[in-house]
Amino acid sequence: MAKKKELKHVNIAEIKDPTFLKEFSYKELDLLSKDICDYIVDMTAINGGHLSSNLGVIDATIAMCRSFDFSQDKLIFDVGHQCYTYKILTGRSLERLRKVDGVSGFQKVSESPYDHFECGHSSTSISVAKGMAVARDLNKEKYEVVAFIGDASIANGLAFEGLNNLNNGDNKVIIILNDNDMSITKPVGGLSKTFRKLSNSTLYRRSKNAYQRLMKTSRFGRWILGWTGKIKNWFKRHVMAMNVFDNMGISYIGPVDGHNIKAMEAAFKKAKGYEKSCIIHIKTIKGKGYKLAENDDSGKWHGVGSFDKETGKLNGDERLVSWSTIYSKAILEEMSERPEAVAVIPATAVGSELQPIFELYPTRSFDVGIAEEHALTMSGGLAASGKHPIISIYSTFLQRAFDELSHDIARMNLNATILIDRAGLVGEDGNTHQGIYDESFLLATPNTVVAMASRESEAYGLFKESFNNHGVFCIRFPRSKLLPIGEKETLSFGKWKKELSGKDTAIISVGPLTLDLKKLLEENKKDVSLYNAIYMKPMDEELISSEIIKNKRVIIYDAYSIENGFAQYLSAKLVSLGYKGKIIIKSIPDVFVDHASISEQLDKFSLQPEDILKLL
Amino acid sequence: MAKKKELKHVNIAEIKDPTFLKEFSYKELDLLSKDICDYIVDMTAINGGHLSSNLGVIDATIAMCRSFDFSQDKLIFDVGHQCYTYKILTGRSLERLRKVDGVSGFQKVSESPYDHFECGHSSTSISVAKGMAVARDLNKEKYEVVAFIGDASIANGLAFEGLNNLNNGDNKVIIILNDNDMSITKPVGGLSKTFRKLSNSTLYRRSKNAYQRLMKTSRFGRWILGWTGKIKNWFKRHVMAMNVFDNMGISYIGPVDGHNIKAMEAAFKKAKGYEKSCIIHIKTIKGKGYKLAENDDSGKWHGVGSFDKETGKLNGDERLVSWSTIYSKAILEEMSERPEAVAVIPATAVGSELQPIFELYPTRSFDVGIAEEHALTMSGGLAASGKHPIISIYSTFLQRAFDELSHDIARMNLNATILIDRAGLVGEDGNTHQGIYDESFLLATPNTVVAMASRESEAYGLFKESFNNHGVFCIRFPRSKLLPIGEKETLSFGKWKKELSGKDTAIISVGPLTLDLKKLLEENKKDVSLYNAIYMKPMDEELISSEIIKNKRVIIYDAYSIENGFAQYLSAKLVSLGYKGKIIIKSIPDVFVDHASISEQLDKFSLQPEDILKLL
Repeated sequence: MAKKKELKHVNIAEIKDPTFLKEFSYKELDLLSKDICDYIVDMTAINGGHLSSNLGVIDATIAMCRSFDFSQDKLIFDVGHQCYTYKILTGRSLERLRKVDGVSGFQKVSESPYDHFECGHSSTSISVAKGMAVARDLNKEKYEVVAFIGDASIANGLAFEGLNNLNNGDNKVIIILNDNDMSITKPVGGLSKTFRKLSNSTLYRRSKNAYQRLMKTSRFGRWILGWTGKIKNWFKRHVMAMNVFDNMGISYIGPVDGHNIKAMEAAFKKAKGYEKSCIIHIKTIKGKGYKLAENDDSGKWHGVGSFDKETGKLNGDERLVSWSTIYSKAILEEMSERPEAVAVIPATAVGSELQPIFELYPTRSFDVGIAEEHALTMSGGLAASGKHPIISIYSTFLQRAFDELSHDIARMNLNATILIDRAGLVGEDGNTHQGIYDESFLLATPNTVVAMASRESEAYGLFKESFNNHGVFCIRFPRSKLLPIGEKETLSFGKWKKELSGKDTAIISVGPLTLDLKKLLEENKKDVSLYNAIYMKPMDEELISSEIIKNKRVIIYDAYSIENGFAQYLSAKLVSLGYKGKIIIKSIPDVFVDHASISEQLDKFSLQPEDILKLL
Repeated sequence: MAKKKELKHVNIAEIKDPTFLKEFSYKELDLLSKDICDYIVDMTAINGGHLSSNLGVIDATIAMCRSFDFSQDKLIFDVGHQCYTYKILTGRSLERLRKVDGVSGFQKVSESPYDHFECGHSSTSISVAKGMAVARDLNKEKYEVVAFIGDASIANGLAFEGLNNLNNGDNKVIIILNDNDMSITKPVGGLSKTFRKLSNSTLYRRSKNAYQRLMKTSRFGRWILGWTGKIKNWFKRHVMAMNVFDNMGISYIGPVDGHNIKAMEAAFKKAKGYEKSCIIHIKTIKGKGYKLAENDDSGKWHGVGSFDKETGKLNGDERLVSWSTIYSKAILEEMSERPEAVAVIPATAVGSELQPIFELYPTRSFDVGIAEEHALTMSGGLAASGKHPIISIYSTFLQRAFDELSHDIARMNLNATILIDRAGLVGEDGNTHQGIYDESFLLATPNTVVAMASRESEAYGLFKESFNNHGVFCIRFPRSKLLPIGEKETLSFGKWKKELSGKDTAIISVGPLTLDLKKLLEENKKDVSLYNAIYMKPMDEELISSEIIKNKRVIIYDAYSIENGFAQYLSAKLVSLGYKGKIIIKSIPDVFVDHASISEQLDKFSLQPEDILKLL
């Protein structure tokens, strides 16, 4: 009897590149898959990060790295946060994942020759792949371009434009559709329903079987079955080619079990053999291998801070809540009082703590999926018909709906409230997710209000005021936490608050850091005035011209935006009023900001309250 | 013998509302249709405007106005420029079409109670309709919401998001798909091919006939044909319901002859009877009734200035060319020298005079259709693979791709040239099309250059410089004309030009109006300095700090943007350099700007060169 062969094993820390995978048996790959799962859970528990999506694609990533050579072939992870296994297999440690001295949570060209592009926003991969494939073919090079995209991301407008343009020209792209049936929250819309149908496999198989059954019952039918001409093509075109991809001229392969490496390899091999673009539909289980994530229906384990691996309990002070939670409560209160209020959310219900709104007001709350443009334009339609839409969106994703905000709401001076979550520096997610650019384009949009609260009570005040016919009322709030005390206040529209009175120097400060600065100034007995610029647009012109311009020095402190936002806007206003004193701007410079903690990012730009103190 | 009945006739100038249409026979309607056609051609010949699209939908608009009551029902024209017949039938004169004292070229809520929303940008109508339908149903009101959209517009990402979300909930919307097979230019992409298939009617009819033929050949088949159960549903779902709309859960009616009012009425009646959303596919002939427009393959008659009705010759000085033409020539030259240069255009090839590029470099030129987002992201993929994309786009449409410009190109510091056509005030198109907001968001995007030439030679210089690895290189140019002289010059990156030397006052001026101002200053012997700020970002900081800040007064003259663009950017720079003199900003205020001639718009804001002279 042959001696039992010992299974090959690799220490994750020693992986340099994915070439070793080809020497592993499927049994050995399964063990590796489990090791990677444990490692990802461990590293995410320490560093925070995207968990469920990464656990779901371990096997698919192994299969891809065996089937393709990504030192030559190009792989673009859509959204990009499901690339942890890929980082591991291409020799990158997750020990310092998302830390300033560690790897990014997304693909990053500067990290590895295996990364060819970077994403962070959703649904870019197909268009990127098309561009790369065109370049390849113009250069007469030979390699595959692979876009790996989830079922929620593919239902977005940009992804559709990419799909729709894919078969203009013969530039082959391989799309791997990662269908886990529960992206951030439930994907919505008609296209998702198509995937459900496909993945249940009934459509494809049943039609084929029914056809054959039908054919075999008649001589004519049997004759047709054996015939390869026109009717067969008709059948192929009309029955087998009935899904949305075939309508777009893209061949469809699947569905394939996304945890069966061998089956995926067969599908990838088939795809490599095609001359034209194709889509491979793989079914994966999100969170696979970590029970808490696997059983998660809510999306809680999509992206997490550091946590206890055994209990799943998140680290951190439990008494603190996010600004999202505060605004979620504010929405609930107003919706109970205002029948005209409706909520429109582009797939950020979990991230912005909005589940209670969907529970209490299911007919007045709309999760439109990752469709930021549609969210804003649909809100325009609602606003034109007597409703008051509340749009909750992350700052970085609002970039994608700037035109719709301007053209479909603000231009007609319709009323809407836009809650802009994760405004300012976002920390570990890094440069694809920074919420520091919206001030610039919002301040340059007519009929638009831009505001930011520094304390809980102001948040309620701002939100209530947003219903008083001021046009597009944008309320920014950061990714920091606060101790809720339940206080509310009424704010006068467009008015600032004088937090401290002093002489010669006026500090105009924006957002929650204003309170930290206030404390510091008081502790250090600084004789300066501190103004809380709750409204960035319209500004408190009366206060500026009656009081602020009398100071010898004005410091504009907005740590939640690049300089080309409120800081510049106010600076220009001071100049237009003939201010001759010194103006100091303390905002983020005109750069993209890499991953680090928010505190480290503030340090880097000398934007901590302590840095303001140093100026005095 | 009965006396021949006299045909009813209406004088177009006397139409108050569309109710009279119901009393007209089809023969009378045909005569009306011809009258409207003549009137639209006459009025467009005088005022300029969108011609082909309006002529194509005269009959469809008559049919809609007979089938629906748009004093209650809502009609949203996608893009909106095909609403001339609707304006006529709702009692609006086109005598002063697009003039400051006349009607807008688009739907306009302030003009008529028959206008419920406004569009100008493409592909918004389905999302707007969804919002309106949701509002209607929440309010328990009863009326129809109709989105009228063209075959090119529906292939855009926003329209897809709208379609995809339409069947979340039961909020019924009627979509009328106006398929004229040749929107602005040829529609592109897989979805268009689907329309082609549908409109040839083969798919629907052939499959049905083939099915029936097949069935009738066998007893089993005949039995099935008479059976209403499972198999029939299977057939319905799988063969009849195979197009992209059915995949999205939207019923499809069509194709219908868009010049047969009776047939359209039948289809609209059917649609009104449905409880769920549906799409009616009508086939129209663009330009119908005016031979020159009807035979136009190029898209020349899509939007025109005033012209001679008989000859079709456009009015105006033939020696003058558009800035688009200058840049089109520049592209041709560089593409012949640089194999890495590729052109990516979102459906604006005709508007921006780019046809020669497609003729000479068909494999390196890509018209992606109305897909601005895809155009930019695909360009990111091209740039990451060693190509240098040249993206030609209108300023107002670039708003829709801001996120893609930032996230998919600038963030990775990839190189691309963006030619921004129709930057500044656009005149008659009005507030949906103003190109005055891009400076704000471009100046706030890191790794981005923003520039504008004042003369032809600088245009060539800027374009050439854009290939020298400066990141995203944006070149703005306005909708004005110039006399081409064929001169070229080489420009130093980031440097301004001193056009006039004087004392105490420095005027920093942007764009072609700089030369008009220069002439005026010379004629009036004004002792001031005039700087031509070819580069808005990066600014010529050396010149600013060595020379400009020595002036007692700085006038920033940018008539191509709102104040919250270069004017504010430069103003903040002067302040940061400690400038204590007077700063005067002459830019467009923070408003949406209605239709009028460009000259009238400049007058309104005192932004003519003469207005600068008055300051001196």
